[in-house]
Amino acid sequence: MIEVGVLGATGYTGAELIRLLGRHDQVRLKFATSRSSPDQSLAKVFPGAPDINLIDPVQAPIEDVDLVFLCLPNGQSAEVAAEALQEGTRVIDLSADFRLADPELYQKWYGQRHPAPELLDEAVYGLTETERERLPDARLVANPGCYPTSVLLALYPLLLESVVGGRVIVDAKSGVSGAGRTPKLATQFVEVAEDLRPYSIGRAHRHLPEMETMLARWGDSDLRLIFSPHLVPIPRGLLSTLYVPLRSGWVESQVHHLYLETYAEEPFITILPLGEVATLRQVNYSNRCVIGMTEVDGMLVITAAIDNLRKGAAGQAIQNMNVVFGLEETTGLL
Amino acid sequence: MIEVGVLGATGYTGAELIRLLGRHDQVRLKFATSRSSPDQSLAKVFPGAPDINLIDPVQAPIEDVDLVFLCLPNGQSAEVAAEALQEGTRVIDLSADFRLADPELYQKWYGQRHPAPELLDEAVYGLTETERERLPDARLVANPGCYPTSVLLALYPLLLESVVGGRVIVDAKSGVSGAGRTPKLATQFVEVAEDLRPYSIGRAHRHLPEMETMLARWGDSDLRLIFSPHLVPIPRGLLSTLYVPLRSGWVESQVHHLYLETYAEEPFITILPLGEVATLRQVNYSNRCVIGMTEVDGMLVITAAIDNLRKGAAGQAIQNMNVVFGLEETTGLL
Amino acid sequence: MIEVGVLGATGYTGAELIRLLGRHDQVRLKFATSRSSPDQSLAKVFPGAPDINLIDPVQAPIEDVDLVFLCLPNGQSAEVAAEALQEGTRVIDLSADFRLADPELYQKWYGQRHPAPELLDEAVYGLTETERERLPDARLVANPGCYPTSVLLALYPLLLESVVGGRVIVDAKSGVSGAGRTPKLATQFVEVAEDLRPYSIGRAHRHLPEMETMLARWGDSDLRLIFSPHLVPIPRGLLSTLYVPLRSGWVESQVHHLYLETYAEEPFITILPLGEVATLRQVNYSNRCVIGMTEVDGMLVITAAIDNLRKGAAGQAIQNMNVVFGLEETTGLL
Amino acid sequence: MIEVGVLGATGYTGAELIRLLGRHDQVRLKFATSRSSPDQSLAKVFPGAPDINLIDPVQAPIEDVDLVFLCLPNGQSAEVAAEALQEGTRVIDLSADFRLADPELYQKWYGQRHPAPELLDEAVYGLTETERERLPDARLVANPGCYPTSVLLALYPLLLESVVGGRVIVDAKSGVSGAGRTPKLATQFVEVAEDLRPYSIGRAHRHLPEMETMLARWGDSDLRLIFSPHLVPIPRGLLSTLYVPLRSGWVESQVHHLYLETYAEEPFITILPLGEVATLRQVNYSNRCVIGMTEVDGMLVITAAIDNLRKGAAGQAIQNMNVVFGLEETTGLL
Repeated sequence: MIEVGVLGATGYTGAELIRLLGRHDQVRLKFATSRSSPDQSLAKVFPGAPDINLIDPVQAPIEDVDLVFLCLPNGQSAEVAAEALQEGTRVIDLSADFRLADPELYQKWYGQRHPAPELLDEAVYGLTETERERLPDARLVANPGCYPTSVLLALYPLLLESVVGGRVIVDAKSGVSGAGRTPKLATQFVEVAEDLRPYSIGRAHRHLPEMETMLARWGDSDLRLIFSPHLVPIPRGLLSTLYVPLRSGWVESQVHHLYLETYAEEPFITILPLGEVATLRQVNYSNRCVIGMTEVDGMLVITAAIDNLRKGAAGQAIQNMNVVFGLEETTGLL
Repeated sequence: MIEVGVLGATGYTGAELIRLLGRHDQVRLKFATSRSSPDQSLAKVFPGAPDINLIDPVQAPIEDVDLVFLCLPNGQSAEVAAEALQEGTRVIDLSADFRLADPELYQKWYGQRHPAPELLDEAVYGLTETERERLPDARLVANPGCYPTSVLLALYPLLLESVVGGRVIVDAKSGVSGAGRTPKLATQFVEVAEDLRPYSIGRAHRHLPEMETMLARWGDSDLRLIFSPHLVPIPRGLLSTLYVPLRSGWVESQVHHLYLETYAEEPFITILPLGEVATLRQVNYSNRCVIGMTEVDGMLVITAAIDNLRKGAAGQAIQNMNVVFGLEETTGLL
Repeated sequence: MIEVGVLGATGYTGAELIRLLGRHDQVRLKFATSRSSPDQSLAKVFPGAPDINLIDPVQAPIEDVDLVFLCLPNGQSAEVAAEALQEGTRVIDLSADFRLADPELYQKWYGQRHPAPELLDEAVYGLTETERERLPDARLVANPGCYPTSVLLALYPLLLESVVGGRVIVDAKSGVSGAGRTPKLATQFVEVAEDLRPYSIGRAHRHLPEMETMLARWGDSDLRLIFSPHLVPIPRGLLSTLYVPLRSGWVESQVHHLYLETYAEEPFITILPLGEVATLRQVNYSNRCVIGMTEVDGMLVITAAIDNLRKGAAGQAIQNMNVVFGLEETTGLL
Repeated sequence: MIEVGVLGATGYTGAELIRLLGRHDQVRLKFATSRSSPDQSLAKVFPGAPDINLIDPVQAPIEDVDLVFLCLPNGQSAEVAAEALQEGTRVIDLSADFRLADPELYQKWYGQRHPAPELLDEAVYGLTETERERLPDARLVANPGCYPTSVLLALYPLLLESVVGGRVIVDAKSGVSGAGRTPKLATQFVEVAEDLRPYSIGRAHRHLPEMETMLARWGDSDLRLIFSPHLVPIPRGLLSTLYVPLRSGWVESQVHHLYLETYAEEPFITILPLGEVATLRQVNYSNRCVIGMTEVDGMLVITAAIDNLRKGAAGQAIQNMNVVFGLEETTGLL
């Protein structure tokens, strides 16, 4: 039985994680923290969540567990991660603190010096399907962002064979839980309910350097994305539509075959028949990533759907935990 | 041309009012204020609103207009109303400050001493259909709350003829704009979108004394309501379902006839054929109140629908203005 | 390992059931049928559903399984149930065919002669919490309707002690999946999305005789309900607000205590602290029924929330199966 | 007073048109037809619509009015248009029948021979802002599709100056009313409410040839679009995100200036400050098209928002009528 703790249990990601841990038969949740609501039941703070007592983070017995999940704000996470590792406790960090290998890039995009740059080298980027070999026994896993999860899984096979023939455009659409649980005018019900809103388009969103870091690691350091996120009036779900010019010589059937082969053994990735499209209903409340594609005039149009709170956050965190500890990868996720 | 000002233009009610004033051909909007966003365009603060320059409320030339609409928080409104009346400017107040005739009742429900109790006697409760005779030349109009508008219009004919034979239950359902525009966790998109939430049920909501004050004025001071508001995941609209025991001797065809007669000349009230129900789609973006009814075992079940931002707030405010100034009552509202 | 089949897999109830069966580790799904889409994958017909091959119902090997779940239209279900029982296969019927004990009542409300009246006596009404003792080894279970599930669980403790002092009003609100999956104008997205719509109010809905049948069985054959269902623009979830006059002598603390005691051992029923309200977010995607209550002027106002596709249909069906076969009652439902 | 008739009043477009005509003080609606609901009130068929008596289309006195609006299915419209013109009645056709100049293209995309090819030359494509000069006294106006309206207005200034330097990608998102009112599984509430669904992506949507026809007319017959429509769970609204490679030499400030100049006098077009984005809340229930833009690495990212039932259909139809008859262009549309 693996013993775990969750730091930051009252956000959307933390609460989802606790719900999933409740279904995992090889894990015991020892504690869950909340700075804003210590000594209350999670069910009180979060309607529908399990009835688990929240403790103040300063009282969290980090040293008594095998692993902590960090669902903390960027910047805070890295400090807690450093403490935990000192105590010999493994860390899966759901913040952005260890996703960028380069501390200067971090400082540029997150507006502060990295709190624990000495750990960056060690951190494994937890896109399970592509980084699986580095995960067993990893001490520190940087769980990917929601947009990068969908985009990178959609591009990975193309990078393997250098199929990308030009600039890639990503037009992405996300449900509102991706924006977090802190009250803001921009995410009030009435503001969102009849709206559809692009934001941080072009090269302005923090997930851009995260994606390009991985693309470079996979061999294409020249690939620059144009990335347009949109806020959609649904609670959860994320759909990325990608426009990828194919290198000449590639036709869609070959490309499709490449995807089928690359992901042939993956339990959580579904490659649709050529010409079909991914939609949110295919992935709601699941840990799957569904990918569809079609080609037109040498342009591959890819659609990739995930549930942003599952495969895009809490689900993938559990998937990573399973691999780190040598469990069946799908445990607790079906 | 009537000249008006709007104080508090960046809430849902204020912005709706300004949108409607733009369609009214006998009114000129001279100014609109915002404490939080002075010197900005309303269109900037409120996507889709008219491009009107907002001024700081302290600079509002209240004395230069014929009428001010107050879309201010409870408590603040009464003070500004007193100033405006001093300057000879009429007031239509969309807050709750002048809805309760009794200052002690106000203090009990709103948690503060009434800021201008000397004006309470003069204030006309602006439920246009029932108080129309007191409106011409009124200096101070207390625009009704959204729930009371639907409930009182649904009960008024019954009070006229003492048809109510027992305790009345009101089960009401409101869209989220009724909760105001200030960011709160309870009205964040994700919290609301998959929820349906009763609140302040029984005798706990501030609109209860407002309704019972009018019922008493109409002759039934013993009538106590049980009132259960519910928050529904839609931006706007309000539906009240009422359960009224009929005094013995009354049958539904008589009751229905009473409604048809009472409201025969009303441009904004639609009485449905017996047995049909009111729904929100019948009233969205209109100033109408639609009322349906059916009787079962001596219990009259009434459904009453309004758009909470129109007939329940800004629309009725304009309707009242039209009557105060002797204009055609429907001007700007069709 | 219990072997089961599902007849009618492509409606909302059938697909939900199959999803839940996939998580149940003591059940094997042997077949699933679809008249409209034989020889296709369920995942094809129903985005997000498991990839299970659908067969034509006439080819269903009913005799080879221990139990069939019937998610068929009213009227069709009873015929298939009779066949299955003949083959020695147990039946959990999610249609309305065996919910009313009286075939004449059935004919009146469902507009046709009951297809298998000889089975009515044997059928156990599957409101698990109240009928649990009759379920072990039952051959035929009539799974309750969604509205009755929430209403009956909310009233049961009161019936046990004869606490009800007068006519009960039920104002119920349901998500749209309760209306089934067959395309209709009334349930098209645009028709529903900005609407809130009462329907079949008073004593006109088919779930009324179902509820009153049980109330009579529990000892109060004079109790007549007034029942007002409303359609709410959410995919799933059901909230009933009940107004129950208390027999004199009862105060709310006693009543609350009665609920706590009655349901003390129930894994799927949550009684909220006095004065709190049930909301949909507390039960989404769970098999729980959450019940809140408050009293005002001798009237008990109860709120009861369920997920209409789980506790109101597929979840309760599995709960019933667990009891019928002597499994842990919560298996596959946490 | 211009007298008009509406053929096909019970779809979303027809009902919206009738609502708008009710606010237009220089038009009188003489008749409205419905094949499915003759002799009923429109308000009965369409909650919230005006109380207008519907007649059978065969009884429509087309010859007695100055203009008919055709809100009929593709194919049917052209036949009625031919009849009306014969009678000397002008036609604004909201179907697709006269949008493609080439009858063979029509046959290819709409699967039938064009019913009145002799009228194609005469038809004026009613994108008011760009075709205004051809509209006065036009006998037959082909009202544009919703997607083409947003896309063509977003591209027009670029075509004027040959700024487009390569293939254009259009990633478009539409509310569900764009799919029409006929009940279909794909547009049932539950199917849509938690989904986000690409469809007809690449070069498969019927609005593609409509757009390319106009691009060619404006001088760029080589410009081929990649077009990806998405269905979004909102009732109305349409947002197009366009990716346009700029011809070398152009920088974003120049391009922005070009838009400001081109549309300087347009009452219904808003060009946002450089770097801002168009969103649906800016255009809901208005006849405006709001356009935002930003450039990154030589790629212009344009966002263009309209209300699909207003500027994308009924609103633009009235705008065209105003120009045809020499009225103030904004009459009835503010």
